[in-house]
Amino acid sequence: MKVELLNYTKDGDKLIAQAAKLCYSEAGLKEINENLSPEEVDRFVHMLTSLGHMSPMEHISFSFYVEGISRACSHQLVRHRLASYSQQSQRYVRLDDFDYVIPPAIEKNPRAREVFIEAIKRDQEAYEDLVQALMEEGMKDKNLTDKEKNALEKRAIEDARYVFPNACATKVMVTMNLRSLLHFFEMRTCLRAQWEIRNLAIEMLKEVKKVYPLLFQEAGPGCLRGPCPEGKMTCGKIKEVRAYFQGGQDD
Amino acid sequence: MKVELLNYTKDGDKLIAQAAKLCYSEAGLKEINENLSPEEVDRFVHMLTSLGHMSPMEHISFSFYVEGISRACSHQLVRHRLASYSQQSQRYVRLDDFDYVIPPAIEKNPRAREVFIEAIKRDQEAYEDLVQALMEEGMKDKNLTDKEKNALEKRAIEDARYVFPNACATKVMVTMNLRSLLHFFEMRTCLRAQWEIRNLAIEMLKEVKKVYPLLFQEAGPGCLRGPCPEGKMTCGKIKEVRAYFQGGQDD
Amino acid sequence: MKVELLNYTKDGDKLIAQAAKLCYSEAGLKEINENLSPEEVDRFVHMLTSLGHMSPMEHISFSFYVEGISRACSHQLVRHRLASYSQQSQRYVRLDDFDYVIPPAIEKNPRAREVFIEAIKRDQEAYEDLVQALMEEGMKDKNLTDKEKNALEKRAIEDARYVFPNACATKVMVTMNLRSLLHFFEMRTCLRAQWEIRNLAIEMLKEVKKVYPLLFQEAGPGCLRGPCPEGKMTCGKIKEVRAYFQGGQDD
Amino acid sequence: MKVELLNYTKDGDKLIAQAAKLCYSEAGLKEINENLSPEEVDRFVHMLTSLGHMSPMEHISFSFYVEGISRACSHQLVRHRLASYSQQSQRYVRLDDFDYVIPPAIEKNPRAREVFIEAIKRDQEAYEDLVQALMEEGMKDKNLTDKEKNALEKRAIEDARYVFPNACATKVMVTMNLRSLLHFFEMRTCLRAQWEIRNLAIEMLKEVKKVYPLLFQEAGPGCLRGPCPEGKMTCGKIKEVRAYFQGGQDD
Repeated sequence: MKVELLNYTKDGDKLIAQAAKLCYSEAGLKEINENLSPEEVDRFVHMLTSLGHMSPMEHISFSFYVEGISRACSHQLVRHRLASYSQQSQRYVRLDDFDYVIPPAIEKNPRAREVFIEAIKRDQEAYEDLVQALMEEGMKDKNLTDKEKNALEKRAIEDARYVFPNACATKVMVTMNLRSLLHFFEMRTCLRAQWEIRNLAIEMLKEVKKVYPLLFQEAGPGCLRGPCPEGKMTCGKIKEVRAYFQGGQDD
Repeated sequence: MKVELLNYTKDGDKLIAQAAKLCYSEAGLKEINENLSPEEVDRFVHMLTSLGHMSPMEHISFSFYVEGISRACSHQLVRHRLASYSQQSQRYVRLDDFDYVIPPAIEKNPRAREVFIEAIKRDQEAYEDLVQALMEEGMKDKNLTDKEKNALEKRAIEDARYVFPNACATKVMVTMNLRSLLHFFEMRTCLRAQWEIRNLAIEMLKEVKKVYPLLFQEAGPGCLRGPCPEGKMTCGKIKEVRAYFQGGQDD
Repeated sequence: MKVELLNYTKDGDKLIAQAAKLCYSEAGLKEINENLSPEEVDRFVHMLTSLGHMSPMEHISFSFYVEGISRACSHQLVRHRLASYSQQSQRYVRLDDFDYVIPPAIEKNPRAREVFIEAIKRDQEAYEDLVQALMEEGMKDKNLTDKEKNALEKRAIEDARYVFPNACATKVMVTMNLRSLLHFFEMRTCLRAQWEIRNLAIEMLKEVKKVYPLLFQEAGPGCLRGPCPEGKMTCGKIKEVRAYFQGGQDD
Repeated sequence: MKVELLNYTKDGDKLIAQAAKLCYSEAGLKEINENLSPEEVDRFVHMLTSLGHMSPMEHISFSFYVEGISRACSHQLVRHRLASYSQQSQRYVRLDDFDYVIPPAIEKNPRAREVFIEAIKRDQEAYEDLVQALMEEGMKDKNLTDKEKNALEKRAIEDARYVFPNACATKVMVTMNLRSLLHFFEMRTCLRAQWEIRNLAIEMLKEVKKVYPLLFQEAGPGCLRGPCPEGKMTCGKIKEVRAYFQGGQDD
């Protein structure tokens, strides 16, 4: 999995503080700016976060480029509706020898690993066989132009991809505003989230912490900021989870 | 594919006319209702549709139950963000001998069909082998309670499903308001849409036409209401497409 | 203020239970329905609410007709973006002797009440004077058709309404799905919310409780379900607030 | 009215081209970047715009600071739901001698102007009288701390503002992504839009054209890109409107 922070709102913390101040002040923006020291920005951002006043957070956003997640993972990812996505199309792009994601538990289990790799290989072969069978039928006794051949191939790969496994890797660009992103982190860095989207969320969190350490200081699963929101479905590991997110995720 | 209209706003056309009248009238709702004959409702709904004044359309919504579409299709479906979804989870539900969708072009091509069915069978076997290998490892030299075994199985199927193909069938409940639904029909009944989601959209359209023929009278691809919006990417079959949607889709 | 529940999803609790069951069950809808007793529905809805698993709640929605709230209130109301609105237009509707909302604290204070009523009356006169002055100018030395006179009047009221006060009453139709509605109740029934939108939220809550007592059993400000989310900005009256919402709002 | 482009996504056109290319290419982002000349970016952006493929446009966004629009205008503005707002609160900010917006047709009509200014003045007086009457009542025979006095004042201005007119000026920060912004321009630069929000939209369009001339080349009312979408409600001035937007708005 590769996660890159492709673009984000510069001076975003300042923008948040400006927005928040605007709501409660007689002053216009010019006057607000004159009194907005970096310390004041920090103080404001911290106050908003702790009070859960999230609307000023919407003014700034983050764009990620993600490569090497599975289609199982991307199907979960795009369920977050307050976000924008551009994803590599399996309909338009011919993917011979596709990349794939192997779950860690399968990687570590020799028998499972063998079964898995074998299944992937056969899917790759089936894909190629299907493209070939469909194209041969389309070309039989015909003299197609290059353009017609391209159209034929497109139709063939559109159908052949039905044998691609969930493990098949995809590429996607994701943009979320800060409010939506914090919610994403809350849901998906939780230990009860599925391992792959959890890894994705953690990588994304690492990236944004590099550029805005303060804004994401308390970002992570709900249990960082109160009791476990999962109730009796809790993972039961609050202490470890808190230590991981608050102590730095790099070790 | 099975599509069922599970629930929808009753007296929805009346609600739309009420909402639209409210905007432009001094009268309150009571007085509006007194002057709202069925003919008046029809006239209003038609006028709004033709002017593209869509906001009153948002007050009514439609819930569908869909069974037997592929995960390739559901991944596209959930990209429509102004909608609500509840989908059968591959993480929580063990799916031995899963159902699957076979693309028509593959169904009709004997060689492709053979390759496809064979691939599906091997995926089913790989899934079962993976679940078994992962569970055996987890149980080795241990005496697990039933609860622990369940947890173990859940983790195993969560990973084993990475070999499921796109063709794997899923079940999903979808709710959209009328405005969002009309947009969905516009995008997805177009001949350039992928065949499976196009079939889904057409089935959904048939269902809602049964209960509100007038509301969906002009629903369908953009070319029903003007020139092809795809420009030079057009399918070039406007005449046939119009005949299909305006002449009744049953033949 | 008049609040009417105009339309809502029938069998909504059942729909929620179906949606939730679908996610975690191998069964299709038919089988799910066979095992869905009213008690089972209740149990499911309660479980989802307590776990905060809100997505199945989105499948059902509620439409309200609201009359006699101020434009100050409607400006706040339409800030809730996951909702649909149709509001009486001040641009299109001539409102001589407009209705208005008088804040209770002003109603009770004789001096303030006098100032307020006087201000309203003068605004009504200014509105009429402005419409007249603008129309006279437009008609001077001209022989307008009725259609031209109507267009002229429309332009005049569009501008004259700039003297309407925030207190001016409006009519609006609102539709929200259950998830969004519960969030609205959480924000707006809080004692720290502005009194008018709080009254509106409480009236709406009363209406929906009549048709779905169980679904809205725990609806209300955040402090009904945990500590005050406003932190040190708390109203400090948790006990009274809880008694009010849990003991019945009718006294 | 003052409109300032406060923040926006840098290299936004490149981001759009990257997103679009990602969907249809086998290549990862690195390889895409290597082949992305400024000309190629321009070509892609133009193609997407003309085809109406809007989803890659969502990755970039624009934040505006707006001062001196009326509350009549801001009430319309916040109806655009795919956007984020932070607005100066009339509940929290005491606004003696508030600024206001005077409609041009009223400004030009001496009689109307006099009525209007007079109405504004009396509203300002009524506001101050109300604050005073409410505070006097609250302080009568009591010895309030400064904090209690502040709370009292806050409650007073919260109610006194009910006499503020629609003309009362407000300050607001708005953020929209490009897709939503283009839709806003389509709706609100139309001659049939109300004059004040139309002026706002035109000012916003001027600001963004300075930083991304190509992206907004065809932005404006629907009639720039086809027949008038308003049908028989058309303003009938397509030629003038097109000349205005396509010839430069500065004269």
